[in-house]
Amino acid sequence: MPIRLTTSAADFETGFAAMLSAKREDSADVGDVVAGIIADVRDRGDAALIDYTARFDRLDLTAETLRIPAKEMSRVVAGVPAEDRAALELAAERIRAYHARQMPQDESWTDEAGATLGWRWTPVTAAGLYVPGGQASYPSSVLMNAIPARVAGVERLVVCVPTPDGVVNPLVLLACELAGVDEIYRVGGAQAIAAMAYGTETIAPVDKITGPGNAFVAAAKRQVFGRVGIDMIAGPSEVLIIAEGDQNPDWLALDLMAQAEHDADAQSILITPDAGLADAVEQAVARLIPTLDRAEIAGASWRDYGAVIVTRDLEEAAALSDRIAPEHLELCVAEPEALAARTRHAGAIFLGAHTPEAVGDYVSGPNHVLPTARSARFSSGLSVMDFLKRTTLARLTPGALARIGPAAVRLAASEGLAAHGQSVAARLQTLNEGSGT
Amino acid sequence: MPIRLTTSAADFETGFAAMLSAKREDSADVGDVVAGIIADVRDRGDAALIDYTARFDRLDLTAETLRIPAKEMSRVVAGVPAEDRAALELAAERIRAYHARQMPQDESWTDEAGATLGWRWTPVTAAGLYVPGGQASYPSSVLMNAIPARVAGVERLVVCVPTPDGVVNPLVLLACELAGVDEIYRVGGAQAIAAMAYGTETIAPVDKITGPGNAFVAAAKRQVFGRVGIDMIAGPSEVLIIAEGDQNPDWLALDLMAQAEHDADAQSILITPDAGLADAVEQAVARLIPTLDRAEIAGASWRDYGAVIVTRDLEEAAALSDRIAPEHLELCVAEPEALAARTRHAGAIFLGAHTPEAVGDYVSGPNHVLPTARSARFSSGLSVMDFLKRTTLARLTPGALARIGPAAVRLAASEGLAAHGQSVAARLQTLNEGSGT
Repeated sequence: MPIRLTTSAADFETGFAAMLSAKREDSADVGDVVAGIIADVRDRGDAALIDYTARFDRLDLTAETLRIPAKEMSRVVAGVPAEDRAALELAAERIRAYHARQMPQDESWTDEAGATLGWRWTPVTAAGLYVPGGQASYPSSVLMNAIPARVAGVERLVVCVPTPDGVVNPLVLLACELAGVDEIYRVGGAQAIAAMAYGTETIAPVDKITGPGNAFVAAAKRQVFGRVGIDMIAGPSEVLIIAEGDQNPDWLALDLMAQAEHDADAQSILITPDAGLADAVEQAVARLIPTLDRAEIAGASWRDYGAVIVTRDLEEAAALSDRIAPEHLELCVAEPEALAARTRHAGAIFLGAHTPEAVGDYVSGPNHVLPTARSARFSSGLSVMDFLKRTTLARLTPGALARIGPAAVRLAASEGLAAHGQSVAARLQTLNEGSGT
Repeated sequence: MPIRLTTSAADFETGFAAMLSAKREDSADVGDVVAGIIADVRDRGDAALIDYTARFDRLDLTAETLRIPAKEMSRVVAGVPAEDRAALELAAERIRAYHARQMPQDESWTDEAGATLGWRWTPVTAAGLYVPGGQASYPSSVLMNAIPARVAGVERLVVCVPTPDGVVNPLVLLACELAGVDEIYRVGGAQAIAAMAYGTETIAPVDKITGPGNAFVAAAKRQVFGRVGIDMIAGPSEVLIIAEGDQNPDWLALDLMAQAEHDADAQSILITPDAGLADAVEQAVARLIPTLDRAEIAGASWRDYGAVIVTRDLEEAAALSDRIAPEHLELCVAEPEALAARTRHAGAIFLGAHTPEAVGDYVSGPNHVLPTARSARFSSGLSVMDFLKRTTLARLTPGALARIGPAAVRLAASEGLAAHGQSVAARLQTLNEGSGT
């Protein structure tokens, strides 16, 4: 049974605090194993990739067959049913349109001191995207990672995807094609992350690695961070739904289970001021679970981490949501914009009864790679910004240096950095002598 | 002697590659010690802070004296010389003006499908800034970290600064005052990071921690990452100067040494197409070093990591700079904007002979917390963005769901996520029955 809390109850705060601090993830300590794999790939390059792929994916490769060739790509992609292709194309187009609006502007201005200041954005040169194999090999995630990179202007976009027993996912390859991926390698696990970070004879290194993966992939990303950039290390997914009493309990039950079916560690929370709706949704969920293909996963998630909270009003619901800082926040209320304005911390907000979270996973346009485990308090979902970096610019005229330089000389002295001060003072002296260039 | 390379020489590539891959930092493995300190602070709170401060800073505190009270603050700050105050005020004002321009815009639009999409930015609620003690206690760094947080709208801004033997740095306190810091605690090291991440009886936890520190502080930031956000883990600082033959060798020598005097692990590089200028700068540096207060540090940095590279032309210099991706790039050439446009990877660019890097450390306005160790290939300096997070927003009308929902149903089926598909399909069915709300 999911936890049931009522804010007016005396023990509410204890129960809510326990829910907030519950750890949902068993992070297996695979750091040493992963360090060994990374060292081996740095050492032996392709040969190490070939060995690990034979061992873990039961697939014999050579340096020549590490990469999926264009011919194989075309053949596999040609087998995708037209309706699947159309759906993926719609998703790609909408994701591209949304992320194109995220492109930041360069700025430059000259201030009253005579300093020309600003910044410019440039893309990362090469990015690598990890795509998990098997059940968790989602074409939608390929689009969500690869399209922002392409929109940002990344020149070289690499995908590593394991193909256990040689089985490739045609929709993953089609997603790569639609997103404009340049190179696809049939390598997975920590060895793929090592190859993208350090390079091998066949795989040139990249500057940034993104994408989801299992504990080995996550540990490898942590270990190569610094050598390359990485995106967030995502935890189990979660949804929080705030609903008013007149909402359809079956729809809400489906939305809660759409989260729960991802993973037994996923978390689905309903907050409502209406105890009757809370009961109706709990009953609807109980009816729904046995009918799902992934009944076992969804059932375990709901049993272990599900929560239903009855509040005095929507204001209180919004305040609790901010304490949770959910990855996904669904506002099934009459005035969702007003309620959204009362919350501060969420990865993505879905407004109104006709915006189920699942449309956000695929086709609404915003990214579905979002901060989990309360990290929406301080971080954002994936965006074009993850594939760009800002360079600040400053140009001082001799006059500007004359105006603001003396303060730098003073501060350098106070920090005990003599050469700092002299590098400014030497120029000021030349200016004072009237021979400045 | 610094390394001297010439691009036209046969062994250039070997020497340059060796320089690129040289590791400048001995990262002492203090992970276990730090993990123990963090666990102890989580366990014992203030009592642990008091014990560590007695042991490491030779200072006896109580829960009541952990925080520097307003009265002490005023008294200490009153002792700052007027010229130092004026210099710090100028710096604060210019940093604030620059960072105010970085505030991103919220966006919202309705697309042709009828989906209202967008995003909004909200500040992190509470941020903690670590300020090192002793020699590396820089008031300029307080401004560079605290002002962007304040501009972003952070509500609660905390500083932890060790005060060994009880000695406080008046300029650090003044910088806190000018930047609008709310609470200052005389606690340092890993214990300060633990306190800000997890909270104690006296120090409420924050959501994001920034600021430089020694190996213990850096390890603690790594370990609390996830619980809170952190900024980058900075490595030793570096400058790359590209200069044409007519530049003043004494100015260039000072700029190189302004970097070298930071740290024996710092790196200063000159790239020029003019071998004569290269000679003149090397001679100027040799004359300069013995005159510096920090001669030993600057001399060691220049001897071990300094580099002078003679290229065929400026084009080649720009290409080498991109391979290095320097933290600071100084362009002492006649047309610095044109040369800047030919480079892609740098934390900050200083254009022209009258923009020495040292003005950027203090008063030009852009942030001096910048990506080191080649990470400018994929990351940016500190900015207001580090204290903001983006929440994506989507609202579909029934009509919009009818248009794009079927593609989501199709993709959910292809990914084997039944409840995802049903959560959309149930709404579509209601719409088709003409009873959609």
